Amino acid sequence: MERTLVEDLKGRLNSEVLVKGWVERIRELSSVTFLIIRDRTGRVQVAADPRLCADLKISTESVVEIYGRVNPEPRSKTGYEVVAEQINVLSLAGSLPINVNGPDLNVPLELVLDNRVLSLRHARINPIFRIQAALVHAFQVFLNGEGFVQVFSPKIVASGTEGGTELFALQYFEEKAYLCQSPQFYKQMLVGAGYERVYEVGHVYRAEKHATSRHLNEYVSLDLEMGFIQSEHDVMDLENRLLAFMFSYVNENCQKELVTLGVKVPTVPEIPKIPFADALQLLEKECAKRIEDQDLDPEGERLLSKYVRETTGSEFVFVTDYPWEKRPMYTMPKGSGLTCSFDLLFRGLEITTGGQRIHTHDLLAANIRRKGLDPQAFASYVQNFSLGMPPHGGLAIGLERLTAQLLGLSNVREASLFPRDRHRLTP
Amino acid sequence: MERTLVEDLKGRLNSEVLVKGWVERIRELSSVTFLIIRDRTGRVQVAADPRLCADLKISTESVVEIYGRVNPEPRSKTGYEVVAEQINVLSLAGSLPINVNGPDLNVPLELVLDNRVLSLRHARINPIFRIQAALVHAFQVFLNGEGFVQVFSPKIVASGTEGGTELFALQYFEEKAYLCQSPQFYKQMLVGAGYERVYEVGHVYRAEKHATSRHLNEYVSLDLEMGFIQSEHDVMDLENRLLAFMFSYVNENCQKELVTLGVKVPTVPEIPKIPFADALQLLEKECAKRIEDQDLDPEGERLLSKYVRETTGSEFVFVTDYPWEKRPMYTMPKGSGLTCSFDLLFRGLEITTGGQRIHTHDLLAANIRRKGLDPQAFASYVQNFSLGMPPHGGLAIGLERLTAQLLGLSNVREASLFPRDRHRLTP
Repeated sequence: MERTLVEDLKGRLNSEVLVKGWVERIRELSSVTFLIIRDRTGRVQVAADPRLCADLKISTESVVEIYGRVNPEPRSKTGYEVVAEQINVLSLAGSLPINVNGPDLNVPLELVLDNRVLSLRHARINPIFRIQAALVHAFQVFLNGEGFVQVFSPKIVASGTEGGTELFALQYFEEKAYLCQSPQFYKQMLVGAGYERVYEVGHVYRAEKHATSRHLNEYVSLDLEMGFIQSEHDVMDLENRLLAFMFSYVNENCQKELVTLGVKVPTVPEIPKIPFADALQLLEKECAKRIEDQDLDPEGERLLSKYVRETTGSEFVFVTDYPWEKRPMYTMPKGSGLTCSFDLLFRGLEITTGGQRIHTHDLLAANIRRKGLDPQAFASYVQNFSLGMPPHGGLAIGLERLTAQLLGLSNVREASLFPRDRHRLTP
Repeated sequence: MERTLVEDLKGRLNSEVLVKGWVERIRELSSVTFLIIRDRTGRVQVAADPRLCADLKISTESVVEIYGRVNPEPRSKTGYEVVAEQINVLSLAGSLPINVNGPDLNVPLELVLDNRVLSLRHARINPIFRIQAALVHAFQVFLNGEGFVQVFSPKIVASGTEGGTELFALQYFEEKAYLCQSPQFYKQMLVGAGYERVYEVGHVYRAEKHATSRHLNEYVSLDLEMGFIQSEHDVMDLENRLLAFMFSYVNENCQKELVTLGVKVPTVPEIPKIPFADALQLLEKECAKRIEDQDLDPEGERLLSKYVRETTGSEFVFVTDYPWEKRPMYTMPKGSGLTCSFDLLFRGLEITTGGQRIHTHDLLAANIRRKGLDPQAFASYVQNFSLGMPPHGGLAIGLERLTAQLLGLSNVREASLFPRDRHRLTP
């Protein structure tokens, strides 16, 4: 007999079925044993004669298969239940370190992550990664439709993208190598290689020593790069449409998950843009927050987001025209001391960095020298810019941050299946 | 004025257009200069008054934008050409180390890879990665449709999947860590975490010292794992349908690229299955090839594939029931000395390894001991199998191998944008 998934049972009333899944709950009455069976599509109540279960020693979270009949049952929430005729245990669960079947999983995050196989079964944790998968799929579908090519660039590299700091080093046979911080150089090379528009979904690595709720040392970067742009505004406009598509895709395809999590996906408006200098003035004037640095700190990001939401209704804001000092050497300069660059804040957190890149050899070489960097270290990269490189720009979205902000998770680790951080290398 | 892509010019006859791209060829006659302009969608002939080009010093592979008019021109292959009214150089190309505009790129593979930005512009190289992207997209679309969830598992791990050999080591803050050889353990954990069906497209790392045309030290693995299977045949049947979908998707979406490469995509039949022991007998009887080992060598794979193609017409063959000695400790044993495992050969090369996995704690623990492995090293993995784990199995397809075999590339490096091998860490 073919297995019937729980979500298909309602169409099989009064039929014989085979249900397979985990035993989420067991309630033994004198004349009947109720089992709640969970599979990847939902949960169903099974009523069994206690004699059927007598010798099976079924424990919570054991995996079983149940032959039975779908009977109308008005007292059940779904209007039916499965009356068991035969139960086979496929895999017995032993004693469980955490209980995953309560309404909330009231254990510290460290235990949630230590017991990942169990915690992911929890009704309020499992949907996080279904929604994350939908975000990624929407990213891919949208960009395919815009003429982008999905690419895979190496994560083992001979040197760092933005200088030698915060790199994980490894021994690559006889040579010293590093884990890639960003596919930046490869994306640009592939634009110049004639693909014009490329995207990559892949891991990047930052050996940052601090441990905050916003940082992971290994995370998934949604990267894109596009040629023949007029300015960084083309990149922002694409991201605006991209996010609108991703959010509406999640809204359409993850209703069950969103309802479970109590999350309402915001509509993505035409996202307001604020030049960095204006943002500083605004923070000082409206929020009594003075920023001396050439970049926003986390509090500044939160206050600015809050102000924009309250005045425009938008949960997103582009901060543009960052000072030259704080942006990497490949960023296109603009006017006096600024750059063609932007960050995107979503609900108080930076989820994207992007901008237009320098596309001519001499300007790039000069900018590297002006930054005080060693031109020799970037020689092979710079060389590509005398092969014919179109004006281009791009961005990177941190997948875990985007997921966490959308779902209201307080720690980015909750949006990573198996996070790697300053103190965690397992499971 | 908005840019018109080359593929859209035919719909703009007698209109003013803006074309942007690379200068693939320059032919200067006394009264007219012809430029072939290439963008991501194709090539077009541009006719320009020599005076328009006089001061521009346009070199081959420079990036230009051309304002002009699409005129009917019966002598052109397309039936039209663009008559230039203004030409702006966006980025001048210097002298080029290789010529990428001949019919074939007659340079050694090492030079092709050293000059990747240029070589990828070649008409016969560029399509490889558009087809590869289509294969990946089809993999993702098919599995989404089958209820699989796309996941991202860590590539920095505390120990190796299959023992401590062939691992790249790195320093992870105070700890020693490794690059992941395979998402095997994570896939299995996620099946057990309730997702039942997961897939991952991600890099894996093998520190293999030998350098052959079939091996990369970093490659993209198309991984999947599925729960509640009856046997490894469920996994093979899924792969059969998956490959049929992927190949037909490429056929429908990459006609232009396939024609350029002269590649005909084979239809995927019901793939024949041959138990390993029968394959050995067959090789000895039909091909005078004797194999003493418990695995096929490359010549054995080629001969068996050839025999199957000649006798059944199939370019694929599943070799099943491999001996216990040669399969990893997590492989489900079968009968006396065999396993529920398979390899898939495509045109003489193994492109998939898969099978059913052990899903019960005690059998797994016993198999690890029987293999002579250290149970302590796998303790945290084995522990998951007392949490309720469904019967499951899965497979991994090497993306570069699949691409190379489909397109008839003789070296797997040709199917990697930026390959990493024994001697190559750049670009």
